[in-house]
Amino acid sequence: MNRQESVDLLARTHLGRLGCAQGSQPYVVPIYFAYNNSSLYSLTTVGQKIHWMRANPMVCVEADEVVSPEEWMSVVVIGSYEELADTPGYLPERAVAYNLLRGKPMWWEPAYVKTILHGTERSLVPVFYRIHVVQITGHRATP
Amino acid sequence: MNRQESVDLLARTHLGRLGCAQGSQPYVVPIYFAYNNSSLYSLTTVGQKIHWMRANPMVCVEADEVVSPEEWMSVVVIGSYEELADTPGYLPERAVAYNLLRGKPMWWEPAYVKTILHGTERSLVPVFYRIHVVQITGHRATP
Repeated sequence: MNRQESVDLLARTHLGRLGCAQGSQPYVVPIYFAYNNSSLYSLTTVGQKIHWMRANPMVCVEADEVVSPEEWMSVVVIGSYEELADTPGYLPERAVAYNLLRGKPMWWEPAYVKTILHGTERSLVPVFYRIHVVQITGHRATP
Repeated sequence: MNRQESVDLLARTHLGRLGCAQGSQPYVVPIYFAYNNSSLYSLTTVGQKIHWMRANPMVCVEADEVVSPEEWMSVVVIGSYEELADTPGYLPERAVAYNLLRGKPMWWEPAYVKTILHGTERSLVPVFYRIHVVQITGHRATP
């Protein structure tokens, strides 16, 4: 897949899997995101992935469209994490993220839904962030 | 989700996302796997993820069932990579992998399908491997 085909997939797909790492240990979780201007915007609540990305901003996001084992597209983004902090300087970028994410089915999820995790509900304080796309690779399998 | 619920999801779901890392850089790709006896069995062809896992066997596999943004289950496995080398000592384990993976829709994919990657077809030599489950965490969101 060429770069434009990969970007097109990112633009129409909102579910991806985010990989971050602490030391040599990778960690992968599903995220919802919105692609805009070479960045993936998302929000979540504070948890392991935020702690890890604050310490090591080198991340990877994989998004795909799987029709069958013989027919799929997969895009892998190597990127860098940037938190859109709740400070005046980040207000414009937080507004961009808010407008991208509002109204989408992902908006309330997975950050806000009642998540059954260790028997407790999670913090409801949102963390906005974006992943700057450093490199995109797209693979496609055809029957 | 308790451990048994997480294992049940792994047993019925064959598509997952594998995270590996080189230095501090994570890398995430889709894989097909079959769960058996606290291991995820899979096969692929030699490529970046195999090179990286040979150098650093600390991996993560995420598998999920997403009904909607408000309703999903996600299981994250922290595990260790073991290559089932084409040597006499690994013959029994390669047979286990072969029997688990044969006949499944994944069998020919993504390792064997004609993958358009940098304009060339990939090697067809299979690499069997398994991920030993070290830790399982399951999250569930309910509407």
